[in-house]
Order: sequence, then structure tokens, then C-alpha cells
Amino acid sequence: METTAILTKDELLKHWLGHRELTRRTIEKFPEKELFEFSIGGMRPFSDLAKELLSIAEPGLRGIVERTDKPYNHDLALTTKAELLAQWDADTPKIVAMFNQIPEEDFHLTHNLFGEYNFPIYSNILYFIDNEVHHRAQGYVYLRALGIEPPFFWDRV
Amino acid sequence: METTAILTKDELLKHWLGHRELTRRTIEKFPEKELFEFSIGGMRPFSDLAKELLSIAEPGLRGIVERTDKPYNHDLALTTKAELLAQWDADTPKIVAMFNQIPEEDFHLTHNLFGEYNFPIYSNILYFIDNEVHHRAQGYVYLRALGIEPPFFWDRV
Repeated sequence: METTAILTKDELLKHWLGHRELTRRTIEKFPEKELFEFSIGGMRPFSDLAKELLSIAEPGLRGIVERTDKPYNHDLALTTKAELLAQWDADTPKIVAMFNQIPEEDFHLTHNLFGEYNFPIYSNILYFIDNEVHHRAQGYVYLRALGIEPPFFWDRV
Repeated sequence: METTAILTKDELLKHWLGHRELTRRTIEKFPEKELFEFSIGGMRPFSDLAKELLSIAEPGLRGIVERTDKPYNHDLALTTKAELLAQWDADTPKIVAMFNQIPEEDFHLTHNLFGEYNFPIYSNILYFIDNEVHHRAQGYVYLRALGIEPPFFWDRV
């Protein structure tokens, strides 16, 4: 599909990495106890939302690159804020390396993400980003309810 | 910038429209009173978040297409759920028509969105979508706090 790109591969990666930066700073804003215990309306605490994001981004992209459809596992053995952030930081360079391995031509191939979501690769990756924005925003409400100012939404550097 | 598109213009539009469908259903889920009054942690009620989205999507895209940098105005005179939904529905076909007018070559031109945010057009449009996902997710927390099940996040049709 030769065309004038409305968005290049590098731009999509930078966009994603900007969101990852912001999500990282959102995790940081939580006090240790509230990160693992505070929630609203029967929802999961933000640590569990962050673990979901961790279990989707790097493993999901790995599935795309290695063409495997292994199911996800949100139940990661991370029990402190420092462990969550360390995993976040360990995953980012892996995400960059794997993303860069996907040829532009492959973004329209269909991939059965986690053996469940059979969509084009571009759509899988947009889902990773959307799902991160979605759950991070829920963390913003938790922070506000705790009287803590969240990071600026537009600040992604 | 001739390349193999990782995401076409039509695909980006469909992606946005899927999110708009889901946000519309999120507005619908709120009881009339809570839509305008309920909030958490000093945040705005969901009606105000929806008005922000309304004041960004169609007017922002209009600014891009007409190359104007008029400021936004979030303070829309919409005081019922029916009025919010009617405005939402009136804007969607305008968004489609305007989006389709932007040539692919222009997505990398810089546009001073609302006279404040000077970025490439593709970045302005990603911001519209991200900001919608962000505020809609906050509405999800409000709904959960009200004991109401939000729409499924992945259901965009």
C-alpha cells in the first residue's frame, strides 16, 4: 500500500513512548499503600491496572514480533511501587527494539493477539496505547480522590 | 513522504469514529441528574468533560481544515443529556466530511490548534482521540462509583 504516510512508524513509536513516560509518572504519584489498596466503585487498585498494562505492552508486542498467540497473564509478581517502575523501565527498551523490527509492510497483517483478538497489527498497537490512556485516566481519578494532583495530561516528555 | 502506510487516513478516521460511538454510549449510561452533578475529587461532572470533547473535536478539526486558530470554548449551552447527544450526533457527519477534505500530504503540516498548540496535524488529531479516551475513562470511574456498569471498552461499533 504505497501512499503518503499520514503517520510514520517512528512517529507512532514516539507517540506511544510519550504515553509510557506519562503513565510512569502517574504510577510514581501514588503513595505506596494507596497504589496497592485504594480503589473506587469496586474497581481494581492502580497497581493492578499498571500490571495489566505491563502484561499487554511488552508481551503483546513480543507475540506480534515472534508470531505467537500465547495468552496474557495480568497476575504479575510485583508487590512494590519500585518493582512496578523497574519492570516498566526494563520493558521500554525491549518495546523500542521489537517495534523497530516490525516492517512497515506488516502493519496490515492480521495477528491473533494473545490468541483472542484477531486484528491487523496496526490495530493491536493502537489498542495497547488506547488501553494505557484509558486505565491511566482512571488512575487520575484515584489521585484526585486522594487529593493528589496528577501529572499534566499533555506533558509526554 | 512516500512509504508503505502503517495506518491509512481511512483507518485513522474509522478508529476515531469507533471511539466516538463508545463515548456516545458512555454519555447515555449516565442518569440525567448525575451527568450534570456527580463528580469525584473536585473534578468536573461528566457533562462538562463531554462539552470539552464537543468543543475540541468538530471546532478543532474545522480550525485545521479552514486554517484558522480561533480559541476553543468549552462553555457550551447544553443543559440536558438529549442536547449533548444531539450535538454529538450533529458533529459526527461534519467531522467525517472535514476529515476527508484533509489531503494525506497535509498531515505533517504544522497547525497552531486553537491558537495555542503548534504541532503537526497528525499530532493534533491523535490528541483529539487521546483526550477523548482520557476523559471517557474518567466517566467510567464515575459510572462505577454510581453502581452503573460502563460499556465494554473494546466495543467500538
